[in-house]
Amino acid sequence: MLDYLSLSALAAVVREGSFERAARALHVTPSAVSQRIRQLEERVGCALVVRGQPCQATDTGRRLCQHMDRVRLLEQELQGSLPALAPEGVTRVALPIAVNADSLATWLAPAISAFAAEVPVLMDVAVDNEDHTAGWLRSGAVLAAVTATARPATGCNSRPLGAMRYLAAASPAFVARYFSDGVTAGRLAEAPSLVFNPQDDLQARWVRRLCHRHVELPRHSLPSTQAFITAGLAGMGWGLHPETLIAPHLQRGDLLELVPQTPLDVPLYWQETRAASALLDGLSRAVVQAARGSLMV
Amino acid sequence: MLDYLSLSALAAVVREGSFERAARALHVTPSAVSQRIRQLEERVGCALVVRGQPCQATDTGRRLCQHMDRVRLLEQELQGSLPALAPEGVTRVALPIAVNADSLATWLAPAISAFAAEVPVLMDVAVDNEDHTAGWLRSGAVLAAVTATARPATGCNSRPLGAMRYLAAASPAFVARYFSDGVTAGRLAEAPSLVFNPQDDLQARWVRRLCHRHVELPRHSLPSTQAFITAGLAGMGWGLHPETLIAPHLQRGDLLELVPQTPLDVPLYWQETRAASALLDGLSRAVVQAARGSLMV
Repeated sequence: MLDYLSLSALAAVVREGSFERAARALHVTPSAVSQRIRQLEERVGCALVVRGQPCQATDTGRRLCQHMDRVRLLEQELQGSLPALAPEGVTRVALPIAVNADSLATWLAPAISAFAAEVPVLMDVAVDNEDHTAGWLRSGAVLAAVTATARPATGCNSRPLGAMRYLAAASPAFVARYFSDGVTAGRLAEAPSLVFNPQDDLQARWVRRLCHRHVELPRHSLPSTQAFITAGLAGMGWGLHPETLIAPHLQRGDLLELVPQTPLDVPLYWQETRAASALLDGLSRAVVQAARGSLMV
Repeated sequence: MLDYLSLSALAAVVREGSFERAARALHVTPSAVSQRIRQLEERVGCALVVRGQPCQATDTGRRLCQHMDRVRLLEQELQGSLPALAPEGVTRVALPIAVNADSLATWLAPAISAFAAEVPVLMDVAVDNEDHTAGWLRSGAVLAAVTATARPATGCNSRPLGAMRYLAAASPAFVARYFSDGVTAGRLAEAPSLVFNPQDDLQARWVRRLCHRHVELPRHSLPSTQAFITAGLAGMGWGLHPETLIAPHLQRGDLLELVPQTPLDVPLYWQETRAASALLDGLSRAVVQAARGSLMV
């Protein structure tokens, strides 16, 4: 049997980012935390935490944290059916997930919020590019993810959620300045584009589909869903915006589609570890249902 | 004199994240990029890039990239006064800055957007906690930052921007459920709070000021300014929201302040490297002016 006192210490250090804060959260001394983790590292035979600011789990450390998360989920279900186990009421467990920023800023937040407002859970949401969230799941850092990867990660189920529809748009002044004689490869090489971060290749994909070749785009990097739209409205650049967010701006004419009828659809999937936990099942149901009402089928 | 062909290769690898993409951007072969960086590493005497997905600069690599950014800024100014130098028009230079998410989502985006729409620049904006953005500046990864740190980093100027005002708020149903008999340390230890990410300690600071002691808060982690407010409205948790963003919700009664008259003001500073570049000066003026209209003095 694993030593769950040590595992709790490991999970606390990774969650809190330092031995001092972990100790405070667990109501023990920092040296007790340090000793428990050292014991665990000796037993496992490798480092579990990279000491730094903040402290981070190694790959093996993350696997152990994920195991801990699963055990806590199962314990909580047990508490639900055996109230005597938890006289002070059901404790809240952490549910780590990884999602893409645009999903979180649009259809996903209401689903997560409504779910978390009802059940005893603490959502721990990480944001990354939809091409990278599956990596979080594979590494064991999270129990579920919204991802562009259809193929299930080891030990996971994958369900299609539908596609997020993006439209290439810019302000009328920007369109007049750069695209008055059409949206061509030559013009796109001059007109500043907006990308969410260096990993965001939606703009490049849209251009490749339109021009049938690679165009080196001048790029502003702006990692905030709101700022992205603010920048579009102010004429800072063109970019691919979620249709649901810019629909009112398109209607009012504050933003124009660069080329009508050229949406880019990004199919998204919900992948969850097969932890057989009713709590995770509940979240999955809420996510799939919210997607059904918001994403393209 | 440094070899600027090699420095360009280094900057491209760090910006693009891979040798292949850097080669494509520079219109050379990946082995040419690799060779230039190796030469530079031999001259400097240490590794400049951590090969990985994505490739990242080492500390020394970042210093060299920052130097490259500065030289490019100066070159661009020269082009402005000597048009013969750039027959095809002024080229756009990258201006890397680090800012906190709430600034970017509120007062800062319009200022950056309006600035970038006018001048030949490509903004490269990184988001981090306001306590960490000064670290980006110190490491040389960016040329300017919005930060909670007043003391100027080496080689930087620091100017006060005013304070971002946060209010602790939650939905009426949430307040009724958890705080019907007052906002006490005991209640706060049970009521789920919202944090932006594990580094966000605004909620903990507000509680320490209110209760005069540390309270271990149950936390949902939700790294999206919009999702944070959506979660507040849906009753997922209480949290500190920028006053400017939740003012309409407070007026309509969709959100309630937990304890009236307990705002938390976070003083922010604009730190910029003394690169003596007119472009960076222009951005600084735009940022300081936007702050004057939006932040608390």
